[in-house]
Amino acid sequence: MVGGVPASRMRRERISRIKKVLREAHLDGILITSLENVHYLSGFTGSDAALVVTETKEYFLADSRYTTQAKGEVSGFEIIEYNKKIEGLSDLINDLGLRGIGFEPQNLTYGAHKELAEKVSGGELIPINERLRNIRAVKDDEEIGRIKRTIDIASKSLRENIWRIKPGIQEREIALELEFSMRRNGADGTSFDTIVASGERSALPHGKPSDKRIHKGDFVIIDFGVRYRGYYSDETCTFFCGKPNRRQKEVYQIVKDAHDRTIASVHPGRKAMELDAIARGWIKEAGYGTYFGHMTGHGVGLAVHENPVIGPESEDVAEEGMIFTIEPGIYIPGWGGVRIEDMVLVTGNGCEVLTNLSKEIQVIG
Amino acid sequence: MVGGVPASRMRRERISRIKKVLREAHLDGILITSLENVHYLSGFTGSDAALVVTETKEYFLADSRYTTQAKGEVSGFEIIEYNKKIEGLSDLINDLGLRGIGFEPQNLTYGAHKELAEKVSGGELIPINERLRNIRAVKDDEEIGRIKRTIDIASKSLRENIWRIKPGIQEREIALELEFSMRRNGADGTSFDTIVASGERSALPHGKPSDKRIHKGDFVIIDFGVRYRGYYSDETCTFFCGKPNRRQKEVYQIVKDAHDRTIASVHPGRKAMELDAIARGWIKEAGYGTYFGHMTGHGVGLAVHENPVIGPESEDVAEEGMIFTIEPGIYIPGWGGVRIEDMVLVTGNGCEVLTNLSKEIQVIG
Repeated sequence: MVGGVPASRMRRERISRIKKVLREAHLDGILITSLENVHYLSGFTGSDAALVVTETKEYFLADSRYTTQAKGEVSGFEIIEYNKKIEGLSDLINDLGLRGIGFEPQNLTYGAHKELAEKVSGGELIPINERLRNIRAVKDDEEIGRIKRTIDIASKSLRENIWRIKPGIQEREIALELEFSMRRNGADGTSFDTIVASGERSALPHGKPSDKRIHKGDFVIIDFGVRYRGYYSDETCTFFCGKPNRRQKEVYQIVKDAHDRTIASVHPGRKAMELDAIARGWIKEAGYGTYFGHMTGHGVGLAVHENPVIGPESEDVAEEGMIFTIEPGIYIPGWGGVRIEDMVLVTGNGCEVLTNLSKEIQVIG
Repeated sequence: MVGGVPASRMRRERISRIKKVLREAHLDGILITSLENVHYLSGFTGSDAALVVTETKEYFLADSRYTTQAKGEVSGFEIIEYNKKIEGLSDLINDLGLRGIGFEPQNLTYGAHKELAEKVSGGELIPINERLRNIRAVKDDEEIGRIKRTIDIASKSLRENIWRIKPGIQEREIALELEFSMRRNGADGTSFDTIVASGERSALPHGKPSDKRIHKGDFVIIDFGVRYRGYYSDETCTFFCGKPNRRQKEVYQIVKDAHDRTIASVHPGRKAMELDAIARGWIKEAGYGTYFGHMTGHGVGLAVHENPVIGPESEDVAEEGMIFTIEPGIYIPGWGGVRIEDMVLVTGNGCEVLTNLSKEIQVIG
């Protein structure tokens, strides 16, 4: 862990995009405080640091817990150790005499912004939300490779555990064994607390695994993901325990068709709100519109939820290299629910479905 | 999960403290956006929601993913479902005609504050950082019970794995097995990615477990914690593999003495900066002052790092019922490091050490 690592070509390309923002917005510097963007630009994988990027030089700032780690992970940046973050940042900004400093308004808190603005003498902090919001949305080859590896770990782990999903097992046990498999297969952690929700509980879109046991006649929603080297996966399978009745088959098929039709419509230039409308419209037409309350999808990368947003009011447009989820669902309180989620990579003329577990109705038990 | 649950007496007491803040600051309402405070006041354990508390009534707001869960967990609040958070909040604030609305400036982002302020007609958003900052610092009996249970799971899990720490095992394997034990013993998750850092890597205060194998002559720092029903634990043991040499024994003993002396000085009314000075002064006097760069401790509860801050510039004062860590360390780049961390509960006349793993030098391998 001693000495620097060479910055990858891709990382230099990412920094050059930040510098383009700097020039276009006529800024003297850009302050990066979100950990995802710190990681994206510098390669740092710790949990507290910031960057200052100027036209001529890049600075990495962290406290003493992280500077040794940074020396091993970050190259091309001058590494500065601070005792107190806001003072470390304002000292650097003042020393460099930066006047227009862009910042991330969706990351910096109201309080931190206020304190920093007071300490930055002669400079002005300028929110650059719009210019940065899609900076990570299009993935480069290094990122696509990492995300595929992340998905591989996740798929392998669920496959190892499908046999467990049968009458009598608790939701909590399924979640636990799936998480153990993910870690054993190389995951650094999970994308979020694994969701296993069965029977009536499958109507909870974010149901925490409980002591409830799986019974015949239950839908079992499993929404899970792997965190691996900073990248995330996100996928949902809905299983059925026993023999589904007519309405259960119908609801599953409506969600499946909404999912399939939306994915078939993904291509560069396609508006995110149109993708959302395809899924939502299909479910509404089938008479279940009131039971689909969340977005159709979201970008996945260094954050498990990032841009683009696939929702009814999104202004995002699909571009080659974007990776996002398509995950329609129907949730009927007191009855149960179904969600089907895949991650897709936008290609030159359509998309590649990256997640690879079957989305046909899987009858188990 | 249908119907409300009775609010505990403790939760009513917490809400009455928020209402006291409301009256003292002459506010019409308080907006709570931090998940920890949402959980603290309402009992909700999901991952996205907000509260609005007025003199006469309390409101809980979430999107459709969480309203069914909320109905099972939250009582005493009117539950409101929104599509878009900022609009849901501003609609309620406007409908109620609230004029002075307190908010959490260390939680709300600059961007969310700006959008909300624009949508709140006739009202003013007032940061109430100072009045809320220690609202969770003193724990009630329900919380102390939960934290003790959390620590029990953590201690049991490390004890089950001490035998593994011997020459040849990888840092990563130790972390993995420890995390499996924590989950098996009932943890909902870990407090943070478990730190296992050995040999030279023990000089990284936040060392990520690597493929490095444990060798004779290594310090092995294990910093770990359990998340259980919303509460966290945090504890660090430093083991030694083989027979420590004179300097290794000396460094361990300096950290141990700094730790013990600080804990012996905890009592109600004791200033946090004095506690920090005891640990820091001891290490400095021994000639290792430059190798202790972080704070001496921090509160632990619904967040793994919360108030009070035990640091050189803290204005916090120990009060009966506070729970915080004492965790001095010495980190010598290229040589190695030692950290010893316990959680203490301030009692009527001193403190109770809640974590219960031995902090004597534990020679293994």
